[in-house]
Amino acid sequence: MSRQPRLSFAASDSSASSRERRTIGLGLIGLGTVGTGTARVFVEHQHEIERRLGCRLELKHVCSRSILKRRDLTWLGREVKRTRDWREVLRDPGVDVAIELVGTPSTALTIARAALQARKHLVTANKNLVAEHGRELAERSAQARVNLGIEACVAGGTPILHAIREGLAGEHFNALFGILNGTTNYILTEMEQRGCSFREALAEAQARGYAEPDPTLDVEGHDARYKIAILAMLCFGRSVRVRDIPVEGIARIEQVDFAYAHKLHHTIRLIGAAQRRGERLMVFVRPMMIPGAAQLAGVHGATNGILMVGSKGGNTMITGRGAGGEATGVAVLSDVVEIARAILAGGASTSPLGYMHWRPGKLAPVGDNVVGAYLRLVVRDRPGILSRVCTILARHGINIDSVLQEPGHSKSRLPFVMTLEPTREDRVARAVREIRRLPFLAAPPLTMPFAELP
Amino acid sequence: MSRQPRLSFAASDSSASSRERRTIGLGLIGLGTVGTGTARVFVEHQHEIERRLGCRLELKHVCSRSILKRRDLTWLGREVKRTRDWREVLRDPGVDVAIELVGTPSTALTIARAALQARKHLVTANKNLVAEHGRELAERSAQARVNLGIEACVAGGTPILHAIREGLAGEHFNALFGILNGTTNYILTEMEQRGCSFREALAEAQARGYAEPDPTLDVEGHDARYKIAILAMLCFGRSVRVRDIPVEGIARIEQVDFAYAHKLHHTIRLIGAAQRRGERLMVFVRPMMIPGAAQLAGVHGATNGILMVGSKGGNTMITGRGAGGEATGVAVLSDVVEIARAILAGGASTSPLGYMHWRPGKLAPVGDNVVGAYLRLVVRDRPGILSRVCTILARHGINIDSVLQEPGHSKSRLPFVMTLEPTREDRVARAVREIRRLPFLAAPPLTMPFAELP
Repeated sequence: MSRQPRLSFAASDSSASSRERRTIGLGLIGLGTVGTGTARVFVEHQHEIERRLGCRLELKHVCSRSILKRRDLTWLGREVKRTRDWREVLRDPGVDVAIELVGTPSTALTIARAALQARKHLVTANKNLVAEHGRELAERSAQARVNLGIEACVAGGTPILHAIREGLAGEHFNALFGILNGTTNYILTEMEQRGCSFREALAEAQARGYAEPDPTLDVEGHDARYKIAILAMLCFGRSVRVRDIPVEGIARIEQVDFAYAHKLHHTIRLIGAAQRRGERLMVFVRPMMIPGAAQLAGVHGATNGILMVGSKGGNTMITGRGAGGEATGVAVLSDVVEIARAILAGGASTSPLGYMHWRPGKLAPVGDNVVGAYLRLVVRDRPGILSRVCTILARHGINIDSVLQEPGHSKSRLPFVMTLEPTREDRVARAVREIRRLPFLAAPPLTMPFAELP
Repeated sequence: MSRQPRLSFAASDSSASSRERRTIGLGLIGLGTVGTGTARVFVEHQHEIERRLGCRLELKHVCSRSILKRRDLTWLGREVKRTRDWREVLRDPGVDVAIELVGTPSTALTIARAALQARKHLVTANKNLVAEHGRELAERSAQARVNLGIEACVAGGTPILHAIREGLAGEHFNALFGILNGTTNYILTEMEQRGCSFREALAEAQARGYAEPDPTLDVEGHDARYKIAILAMLCFGRSVRVRDIPVEGIARIEQVDFAYAHKLHHTIRLIGAAQRRGERLMVFVRPMMIPGAAQLAGVHGATNGILMVGSKGGNTMITGRGAGGEATGVAVLSDVVEIARAILAGGASTSPLGYMHWRPGKLAPVGDNVVGAYLRLVVRDRPGILSRVCTILARHGINIDSVLQEPGHSKSRLPFVMTLEPTREDRVARAVREIRRLPFLAAPPLTMPFAELP
């Protein structure tokens, strides 16, 4: 085994020496957090990546609307062309791979279509774009015989999409459960560990830069919804309309819910799930009660974690950074490496979303789901409350598993919790709508399913 | 977005319809646990995998030395050719991908060389083969312009090798720490959770089929050593000689070590590690003290877990099944899918071991490592013992962090523990060699480093 440095694998192969000379050109559109992070990671890892590929990679062209004002880009290198017009990047014959990292979904779609039209390989980190238009982009890239890289769209620093599409390509997935949004997981684990309120944890997340000034997209679960839509495509070969996926955020979770969860040996996480239900899929995003011993319960802070349930390989879990410019930049560059390998191999795009043949993406209604539930009520205490609530539950045929009440709360705003035996969710929802109308309620009831993890 | 079933991605592309008709033929050599598992997973997942590929996959030829005696293979299908001679599989022009799953490394090497010589794509699950001859196979596959699949060699059910080579191809890895052997992890977690002895846990593992009748390869760490050698190749682009990697097994761990570890808020795991040390690598397999809150401490039973430490993407962890015929079969088939995609795309092999350019795989001596250590002594109690031990440690310039002694042990065989402040490991080793000669020792001293996980 030779010990000389930088020995090429296939030194005796004439095609290898042509690979040596080959340069693959990159065009970067968008220099926000992810764009800047990607460029920084590229500059620092370029040498290592070139050892992997056995060819040169060059950042040829960057585009940013504010490029003329940015005087801090000397580290990009002098030979990199700069423009405010993304069309110039796509017209540059030196650019083989277009990296689209603009934030606005409509602009991203225009750029993506134009890039594939121009037969540039395309890498994007825009989850909205891929969740809404993934199949169109996959079809266009197959027609143009170029590659499409989307690893950065879900859980930036983790290799989750490659794991599904390639590493576990021989698996038949039954389900996937993910903590897909770092902001909400940071908030929930702060509430869990420090005993603070949702508001306090959110303020902390904003102060640390984990949450946006307007946190709605994260807190209401919409960000996680785009991601579970993409994961469902890759796991099951079905495209699901994002707006059809039921979503529920974490803003109504209170400190007291963690106290009760703890008593029940559970914790609370915002879960994006996609599961087979016969010929349909059940897909949702919502807060769930997670058994304390489950791996997902061990995912703390701004981390992402995804549990894949296979029919033969069992449970596989990936955890890692879900956001941040440089972590997402690693994912972008991983796609660039894969595309560069395909270019060097002379191959074209195949099933960038995991499947060549698709099935209808019909959703099974969550109401059909039979699951145990946590029901938290906050009442103005007076005699007969439990009897009224129990009567309604009994009328809907719902069995009560336990009733819990922690001491130390005011009589005018008394929280207590019932756990319900596995029941159809639509039946629980109907009962809760009735309970909501009871005159002694001090806050709307909160229900959360107990996650049944394999 | 169309909802009709089995819609092809690129229905308008003429190349897609030629893909439709394409059949890719598989030849399976070896029908032991992994071979049978692979065939079973193939039969059950074939339809799903063909949806992914948009082409037919066919098992054309199987080879097993005992094929004539096996009457239980009707589920393989009647059209599958059967032979006792692997050369026939490689001569079959219908076989595009040779799947080598024989156990014996020397036979595996002969078959692998012949398969690449015959320009068959090659998938292997033989970790010895890849750890010892990986670069040779990679060079031969590059020359033959065929692909090489090795995912099944490490942590069968997990997509760890694809994660390193593709999903995180844009990362610059600093280190990797893995629980790479399910048998030893099962034994250690049984000792941890049930408080049983090593012998009892081993017997339990054997009864459950997690351990071989002769468990040496697992228990002494040799199985994990092959795997860390492969992981080091993929992470760092350096080939390390397997026999140069220091290895230490778990047979000397006693129940009392878990009691002390617990007191120190740690647990014990057999860790394979590969870390950058300047221009060298530090690679080893040995039991380590792992902080109780670390993700690796949460890997229980016959599960594998691998923590990758990147310089930009942070820590990424993958856990899942490490062994078993069907879990390993999923990994084998995942490689088959990847190779089929490459065949359909018209591409050839590029950097199957992650790198085209290699660096010398020089190992840094473990003795240079500065690390805190756990030192357990078992003594025949009498006055002056601690003073003798402390004198030796002081003479070697080693500071003691704490001394622990659990009650309830016999005076004639009294275990106690010292934790040592971070010190060069070779210095600790020299001191321990001196301590070992003290007359009051009832058993050789045991040292374990405290893992410093990022």
